[in-house]
Amino acid sequence: VVVDKGVDFANYFCTYAFLYHQKEMLCDRVRMDAYFNAIFENKEHFRGKTVLDVGTGSGILAIWSAQAGARKVYAVEATKMSEHARELVKANNLQDVVEVIEGSIEDITLPEKVDVIISEWMGYFLLRESMFDSVICARDRWLKPTGVMYPSHARMWLGPIRSGQGDQKMNDYESAMNDWHSFLEETKTYYGVDMSVLTKPFHEEQRKYYLQTALWNNLHPEQVIGLPAVIKEIDCLTATVNDILTVRANFLSSITVEKTRLCGFAGWFDVHFRGSSVSPASHEIELTTAPSIDNGTHWGQQVFLLHPPLRVGEGDDMMVTFSMNRSKENHRLMEVELGCEMRLSSGKQLQPLAKKFYIE
Amino acid sequence: VVVDKGVDFANYFCTYAFLYHQKEMLCDRVRMDAYFNAIFENKEHFRGKTVLDVGTGSGILAIWSAQAGARKVYAVEATKMSEHARELVKANNLQDVVEVIEGSIEDITLPEKVDVIISEWMGYFLLRESMFDSVICARDRWLKPTGVMYPSHARMWLGPIRSGQGDQKMNDYESAMNDWHSFLEETKTYYGVDMSVLTKPFHEEQRKYYLQTALWNNLHPEQVIGLPAVIKEIDCLTATVNDILTVRANFLSSITVEKTRLCGFAGWFDVHFRGSSVSPASHEIELTTAPSIDNGTHWGQQVFLLHPPLRVGEGDDMMVTFSMNRSKENHRLMEVELGCEMRLSSGKQLQPLAKKFYIE
Ligand SMILES: Nc1ncnc2c1ncn2[C@@H]1O[C@H](CSCC[C@H](N)C(=O)O)[C@@H](O)[C@H]1O
Ligand SMILES: Nc1ncnc2c1ncn2[C@@H]1O[C@H](CSCC[C@H](N)C(=O)O)[C@@H](O)[C@H]1O
Repeated sequence: VVVDKGVDFANYFCTYAFLYHQKEMLCDRVRMDAYFNAIFENKEHFRGKTVLDVGTGSGILAIWSAQAGARKVYAVEATKMSEHARELVKANNLQDVVEVIEGSIEDITLPEKVDVIISEWMGYFLLRESMFDSVICARDRWLKPTGVMYPSHARMWLGPIRSGQGDQKMNDYESAMNDWHSFLEETKTYYGVDMSVLTKPFHEEQRKYYLQTALWNNLHPEQVIGLPAVIKEIDCLTATVNDILTVRANFLSSITVEKTRLCGFAGWFDVHFRGSSVSPASHEIELTTAPSIDNGTHWGQQVFLLHPPLRVGEGDDMMVTFSMNRSKENHRLMEVELGCEMRLSSGKQLQPLAKKFYIE
Repeated sequence: VVVDKGVDFANYFCTYAFLYHQKEMLCDRVRMDAYFNAIFENKEHFRGKTVLDVGTGSGILAIWSAQAGARKVYAVEATKMSEHARELVKANNLQDVVEVIEGSIEDITLPEKVDVIISEWMGYFLLRESMFDSVICARDRWLKPTGVMYPSHARMWLGPIRSGQGDQKMNDYESAMNDWHSFLEETKTYYGVDMSVLTKPFHEEQRKYYLQTALWNNLHPEQVIGLPAVIKEIDCLTATVNDILTVRANFLSSITVEKTRLCGFAGWFDVHFRGSSVSPASHEIELTTAPSIDNGTHWGQQVFLLHPPLRVGEGDDMMVTFSMNRSKENHRLMEVELGCEMRLSSGKQLQPLAKKFYIE
């Protein structure tokens, strides 16, 4: 699939050109602490080394890499944010080490291969934005055979949840549809046009918007009502674009909470900084976006709601099937198919569910 | 300037592909009544005639034209909304009269010239979206020499206003800047990076966002505190793209309200359906988006706020200079420069103001 650069910029990169948006990421303490500790607790990976920061944004990771002792850091950024990064590098007196390059990582060339590739490429539910493609491209072109990836590993998780959001969304959806019906009547009465043929497509459009679009949320851990499962593992040193085009998983889970409602599923991710097998990190660092009381992130979790929820209780088992693909219209957005077969502890088998969702 | 089609679609057309958005327009009674009355009170312009609907959306104007007796209606729509329009035409039994054509008006061809061009092309403050360019293109290619434009005339208005929105926006701006300063401190303390070099660009970005972006509002007529002026008149039958690239006006206005605050200016528009000089409408119809108690529209007014407001009173005079150009990055968005020189009734002359705004 060939992606039009201008369109990709209009749909995707444009937001990263705002300091406001970079600041949101810079204010995410969980994110910041993880990268900060990954770098400064593993200085041996940086001291005297060459580093490539894929998508440097404000320049923060490049600056830290330099502060940790890198000999040279190439900081590549597709948007005009590169100009701010360059200023920031200078203001922190690192212009001799950090070279900011404006351009897509796919287009630029470096004068040498690097020891480390560092990048904060993770989108909602890890793969939204498809930015890891660019990291793979950078790795295959610019990482030395002995090089290290920061982060080195990534995982996707999925777990059953309860939530009040679904009722709200269902209300919103129903009131949009009620509104539609009075709209139909008025249009017929006052303006002589029968629009009822549009009811079905409007219905579908609103359904997609209110009920089938994954929701952003920072859940409370107690909203997770069963065992979550790892549905994808990525070794950043070896994964190919083909490996991440589709995510497919089947797993068994059990409800671990007394009488409750299964309202849907939540997806999140973690990444690890472990270095590589030839050059393991002295201090492994984890960055997780799992539901947490104190350590919510700007990624939150992506919530896929079931309508209506199912009454479930401790010991009920379910077989979950999950598959995620890129949307045909925009390779940075995702489409998800979720299936769930419940076997209650009473032995009763519920009607299998199969739902489609959009990560927009 | 060459516009990339894909980018234009991503930035502009995409929203029109949603029934939700078409419905918003279809629910604007002021808009609907004006077009409905313009057509059905001037049936002689439609009976037995050929009509081109530029940007038919849901198809509503094409359907009305057919119901008013048109022999043939070409209904051109750039987005997939064309498919819904086609269904709607069929459901209303007009498929022999209305031909829905999917494509940009700039690209398609018709088998004949038409007697009437009807279009609802108006954006915020009339010219946002620059869709009138497409109507001009259609007119120059497809309107018969004796043809009629629906609407036939358009005007832009500007008037001095009072509003509480400005205080709110100033608060938002100030709290964003306070937040920035604590962000700077934390980033320095916890993460060892001095980001103060970004203060100025962040300041400018936030200023543009909170203080220099024109706001949408349906004002109460009493918020207009002085005489509004017409700053642009367009004859839809003769205007060229060049005529609308820039809008420039100087005018005098007086405050007509006792002691108050001049908080800024509001821009709105009206259009008229008058037919043409060879074929005048039997019933002239006006569609106005001026501040109104009962007849607000989805266009509302565009508000340009002054910070801080000026204390003014009845009889104070002002000289207003206005200029509007298309934004270089996106020809469908606008940049406005507003100047104001106040001469108070006491004889005192205030410092002249010159402000820049963005219609996004
Ligand atoms: N293919 C590509 N080439 C260059 N930059 C890219 C890119 N894809 C995404 N980016 C940039 O990567 C950044 C991701 S956000 C992370 C910013 C920064 N590294 C930080 O951790 O704070 C964005 O600024 C985006 O514009
Ligand atoms: N150059 C162009 N060619 C074809 N359609 C266009 C166009 N520019 C804008 N449009 C379409 O024009 C419509 C304007 S909104 C008006 C819709 C409809 N006529 C109504 O009155 O309700 C949108 O649906 C938009 O997609």
